[in-house]
Amino acid sequence: MNFSFEQLESFTQKILRKIGCPEKDAATAARVLLSADLRGVDSHGVARLSGYVRLWEANRINPVPNMCIVHETPSTAVVDGDGGLGLVVAPFAMQVAIDKAKIAGTGWVSVKNSNHYGIAGIHAMEALKHDMIGISLTNASPLVSPTFSRERMLGTNPISVAIPANEQPPFVLDMATTTAANGKLEILQRKKQDAPLGWIQDRDGNPTTSPLGVKDGGALLPLGGDREHGSHKGYGLGSVVDIFSAVLSGANYGPWVPPFVAFLEPHPNPVGEGLGHFFGAMRIDAFRPAGEFKKHMDQWIGRFREAEPVEGQKKVLIPGDPERELEAERRQHGIPLLEPVVEDLKSLGDKLGVSWDQND
Amino acid sequence: MNFSFEQLESFTQKILRKIGCPEKDAATAARVLLSADLRGVDSHGVARLSGYVRLWEANRINPVPNMCIVHETPSTAVVDGDGGLGLVVAPFAMQVAIDKAKIAGTGWVSVKNSNHYGIAGIHAMEALKHDMIGISLTNASPLVSPTFSRERMLGTNPISVAIPANEQPPFVLDMATTTAANGKLEILQRKKQDAPLGWIQDRDGNPTTSPLGVKDGGALLPLGGDREHGSHKGYGLGSVVDIFSAVLSGANYGPWVPPFVAFLEPHPNPVGEGLGHFFGAMRIDAFRPAGEFKKHMDQWIGRFREAEPVEGQKKVLIPGDPERELEAERRQHGIPLLEPVVEDLKSLGDKLGVSWDQND
Repeated sequence: MNFSFEQLESFTQKILRKIGCPEKDAATAARVLLSADLRGVDSHGVARLSGYVRLWEANRINPVPNMCIVHETPSTAVVDGDGGLGLVVAPFAMQVAIDKAKIAGTGWVSVKNSNHYGIAGIHAMEALKHDMIGISLTNASPLVSPTFSRERMLGTNPISVAIPANEQPPFVLDMATTTAANGKLEILQRKKQDAPLGWIQDRDGNPTTSPLGVKDGGALLPLGGDREHGSHKGYGLGSVVDIFSAVLSGANYGPWVPPFVAFLEPHPNPVGEGLGHFFGAMRIDAFRPAGEFKKHMDQWIGRFREAEPVEGQKKVLIPGDPERELEAERRQHGIPLLEPVVEDLKSLGDKLGVSWDQND
Repeated sequence: MNFSFEQLESFTQKILRKIGCPEKDAATAARVLLSADLRGVDSHGVARLSGYVRLWEANRINPVPNMCIVHETPSTAVVDGDGGLGLVVAPFAMQVAIDKAKIAGTGWVSVKNSNHYGIAGIHAMEALKHDMIGISLTNASPLVSPTFSRERMLGTNPISVAIPANEQPPFVLDMATTTAANGKLEILQRKKQDAPLGWIQDRDGNPTTSPLGVKDGGALLPLGGDREHGSHKGYGLGSVVDIFSAVLSGANYGPWVPPFVAFLEPHPNPVGEGLGHFFGAMRIDAFRPAGEFKKHMDQWIGRFREAEPVEGQKKVLIPGDPERELEAERRQHGIPLLEPVVEDLKSLGDKLGVSWDQND
C-alpha cells in the first residue's frame, strides 16, 4: 500500500508533538525520518517511529533538549544533545559545522548525549545547499563483530559523504561499514530467504546464511566479510566512525552504546553520555573556486557513468543514483509501507490520539 | 637476506642525491620510503626505488621542487608539489595541515602536482607527535574497476587514520580501498599461487583467481569484491579518496592519473597536474582535553583487544598492531629483501655510482 509523503509527514509530526516535541523540532524530525522512506532505506524511516516513542516511554528521549556547544575552536565544536532525538540533534550539530566552515573554511562537530539520527546521508546533504562537502558519521547499537571476534562490539556505523556537482546531480555516498546493513537482513527475514555468506556469523562466530543469525546471538560482519576478503578494513572503518563520534565527544562507544530497542537496557556502567555522531563541512572555495570544482565533478561523474560495463551487467552507477531515482518515484507515486508497519502506526496513533486517516 | 635499516637508508639517500635531491629532501624521502619496509608493506618500500629513478629519467620527477601553498583559509590549503617526489611533497603538506590545526583546531590540505607518496600511514602518523589525529589519502595509478565496470577507473586509493592513545600504542588504520592491495597480488604472482575469488576480475570483467589477471588487462576489485558483498561501498570510498585528493586540488583523477611505471605514458589530455593527496590533522584538545581522550582511547583499545575471539581464531587485533610488531622485529633483525630486489638495487647503484656495500 502506498502513502503520500505529506500524509506520513503530517502523521509523524503529530505523534512527535504528542510526546512533547516543540512544533519546529517535530517538523525537523519528521523531515529527517521520512527522508529514509523517500530514499528507499525503509528500515530507518517511519517504520521506526514507534521505536522512538518506546524510547521516550522508557525515559530515554528528552523531547525538549537544551542542545548546546560545550567546547569549540574556530573549526571544531563538541555538541551536547541533552538526550534529545538524534533526528533533531543532528541537524543542529550539522548547522554548527556549516557555520564554522563559512568562517574557518571547514567545520567539524562531534556530538554526545544523542540518540538514533535516521539515515546518515540526509545530514551530509545539508552541506550541498552551501556549496560545501558534507560528512556524517554515527555510532549505533552493537551488532557487529570485529574480525576474529565472537562478541558484538560495534554498530553498523555508517559513513556518508555528499559532494556537489554542477549539471550532474551530487555524489552522495551513504554506506554502513558492514557487508550489508541491518535493514537488508530484515527484508530477508520477512521473506524467509537465506543471506549470502559473508554477511553474518552465528553465536559461535561461524559463517551462516540464516538471516535469523543476528537475532540468535550472532553478529553482522564488517565490510569485507572475512579476513581473506578484507573484513579487517571494514572493522577499521567502523572503529574510526566510533572513535570520531564518541571518544572525541564523550559519548558511549563500542559495546557500551545504548541499544535502540527500548526492551534492552543501556549498559549499567556507561563510559559516556548517550550515543555519538560526527559531522564535517568543507567549503569548496576553501580549496578552489566552486565553479571550477563543480565543472570537474561533472567531468568525473560523466566519465564514471560512461565506463564500459561488464557484459550483461548494469551501467556503472554513481553513489546516490539509486536513492535519487527512488526519491523521485516515491514523491510522485507515494511511499510503499508493509501491512505490519501500517498496523503498527495505526495502533501508535490510537494510543496517542492521532488519527491515521489522512482527512482527519 | 636481511639488511639493516641504516644500510638501506644510507643507500637510498645516496641514490636520491645522485638524481639531484637536496640533502634534506633525500633524508626525508629515504625515511618515508623505508617506513614501508619496516612496517611490512614490502611492495611500497625500497623495492620501488628504481621505479622512482626511472620516472626521474623520463623527466616525470622534479628533484628540486618549489613546493608552495597556492590557496588557503584558516583551516585549509592547496599545495602545489611542483612535480616533486611524493615522498617529499607529502611531509611538506602534512606539516601545513598540522600548523593549521595548531591555530584553527584542524587543518586540511589537498595536494596537486605530486607523485607516489609511499605508504599512507607514515604521513598520518606524523600527527601523533602533536597529540593530533592524522588522516592521509592519495589517489594512484588506475588499476581498479568500479562495481559493474570492465574498465579500470580508480587506484587502490588508500585511507589512513592515526589516533593517539596513552598507555596503549596508537590506533593506526592504513588500508587500500580494494579487497587486497596490489602488493599482496605481487606476492602471489611470485609464489605462483591463486588469489581468492573477490580480489580480481579478468579482462572481460569476470571473477578470476589468476594472480596474473590484473597484468593481463583485468582489474583489482573494490573492497567488498562483488555487488552482493558490498563492492559498491569500496568503490564509493575509493571515489571519495580520488575526489578529495584530486578534484579539490586540481590534480588528475580517475583514469587520468599518471601511472607509476615509467614505461606507461601519462594520459595525453590530462585533466589536472600530477597526482593528488589529501591530508588532515585534528587537534585532540580542539574537542576535549587530550589526557581525557587518551584515557578513553586506552579503554577503547583495551576492551577491543579483550573481545572474546572465535574459537580457534587469533586474538582480536587493533589496527596498526601487525605493522608495529613487524617494525620492532625488523629494526632489531633487519629488513628481508628478495634476491631480485637486491640485484635490482645493486645494478641501480652501479649505474649511478653508489656502492651497495655497507662499508664503502
